[in-house]
Amino acid sequence: MMNDKIISGKNNIQITKSECGGQKGCGAMTCCCKGNEDGNVKHKQRDEQEKKALMTRLSRIEGQVRGIRAMVEDDRYCVDILTQVSAIQAALNGFNKELLARHIKTCVSEDIREGNEEAVDELCELLKKLMK
Amino acid sequence: MMNDKIISGKNNIQITKSECGGQKGCGAMTCCCKGNEDGNVKHKQRDEQEKKALMTRLSRIEGQVRGIRAMVEDDRYCVDILTQVSAIQAALNGFNKELLARHIKTCVSEDIREGNEEAVDELCELLKKLMK
Amino acid sequence: MMNDKIISGKNNIQITKSECGGQKGCGAMTCCCKGNEDGNVKHKQRDEQEKKALMTRLSRIEGQVRGIRAMVEDDRYCVDILTQVSAIQAALNGFNKELLARHIKTCVSEDIREGNEEAVDELCELLKKLMK
Amino acid sequence: MMNDKIISGKNNIQITKSECGGQKGCGAMTCCCKGNEDGNVKHKQRDEQEKKALMTRLSRIEGQVRGIRAMVEDDRYCVDILTQVSAIQAALNGFNKELLARHIKTCVSEDIREGNEEAVDELCELLKKLMK
Repeated sequence: MMNDKIISGKNNIQITKSECGGQKGCGAMTCCCKGNEDGNVKHKQRDEQEKKALMTRLSRIEGQVRGIRAMVEDDRYCVDILTQVSAIQAALNGFNKELLARHIKTCVSEDIREGNEEAVDELCELLKKLMK
Repeated sequence: MMNDKIISGKNNIQITKSECGGQKGCGAMTCCCKGNEDGNVKHKQRDEQEKKALMTRLSRIEGQVRGIRAMVEDDRYCVDILTQVSAIQAALNGFNKELLARHIKTCVSEDIREGNEEAVDELCELLKKLMK
Repeated sequence: MMNDKIISGKNNIQITKSECGGQKGCGAMTCCCKGNEDGNVKHKQRDEQEKKALMTRLSRIEGQVRGIRAMVEDDRYCVDILTQVSAIQAALNGFNKELLARHIKTCVSEDIREGNEEAVDELCELLKKLMK
Repeated sequence: MMNDKIISGKNNIQITKSECGGQKGCGAMTCCCKGNEDGNVKHKQRDEQEKKALMTRLSRIEGQVRGIRAMVEDDRYCVDILTQVSAIQAALNGFNKELLARHIKTCVSEDIREGNEEAVDELCELLKKLMK
């Protein structure tokens, strides 16, 4: 189902995509799985509807950023630009909330039920970043 | 209505103020001007260095959003995605702070010196949006 | 063990009350329990150390707010007051993060293990409020 | 009008209150003035109505913090406590916005009109702190 391939990501992230065959909790929809023996990237398979909803949000946000760039290019007034940036921030926040809720309802819940306490520590660390 | 004159601004900005007649972008450097006869869009001409710096930041942010989209496409783990989104939020915040500082140092300061109190009200309204 | 009944709580939250055995705070360390016989309030017994740490943080924050009030009373400069308020906001955020982490590690984890999915929905709703 | 007195503030701030006699922009309502020869504390005289409104907001916030402390003392449920803390954060944010707007409308505007550019730099620094 998933071919092993290495994709070099932006920001110096090495993205390793791999088959999760034997992985605990894997092979199923909305499961969490660890990376393969390369070991450095985790994946989570989302159902089509969720994935599509996330992609749609991101495409819209990307369009909004391009829109801001066009505004700067066009020498638009600072206040109008800043107002649009604040709309992007709200949109990213909406994306975060949706993905975070799915994460808690699937990955975290599943890990807790399986007695994997690390998921809880990881969530708390993540929330510290998100609640600046 | 507005005479062409040169004002040397803070932080090495050459502020050239000029008649905004011809529109759009009003032909002058870093002035603030109301919309043209179409009337619905305000412009501010920024010096090349500032404009380039803003464009560079925005291109980087656009790349980051595309990176998130690739992560979702690639079924990457929620926590890794959310961590990257939080980096974008920090980058947008940095963009906001830079543009806002320039706005206050040029547009708002100039308007206050000219007795245009609306600029102050507008700034306060903007800050309410930015300080959610 | 738990009888379901509905009590309308503060802030229009529907609280489902159930018997917690010994009450109040249900006798166990760091457990979550529904309200006592008064019926409209949920409790959670925290261990002494955690409770003391939370109280200490709050006393300090209360002192900081009083300090701000003294500054206003004393006609102190706006920027100095605002800087102190931003310190309080950081302190409240720290309090939130600590309490939230404990909540997830105890209440939410426990509820998930017991198959109580409402705890997860409640957490997601809470995070939406905290991640404005 | 103002007696010299020393108040030892929280967080190791030495608060020196003093007559602003010769100060530029002083002696008037809603002016900004530098500290006296002790030099380390700035004051701003606010009109009675503004001062009272700020004090009222702060008293209410102080009461809210005490309320949270009572909730922790009473072993109240985490989510209910966190919801109340989020209300305090909104109230502090409201206080900030009000004080900041007054600051810009009086101190900053006045300083700009008097050619004091430091006020602008100071405002930009402050906004960086407030727009975390």
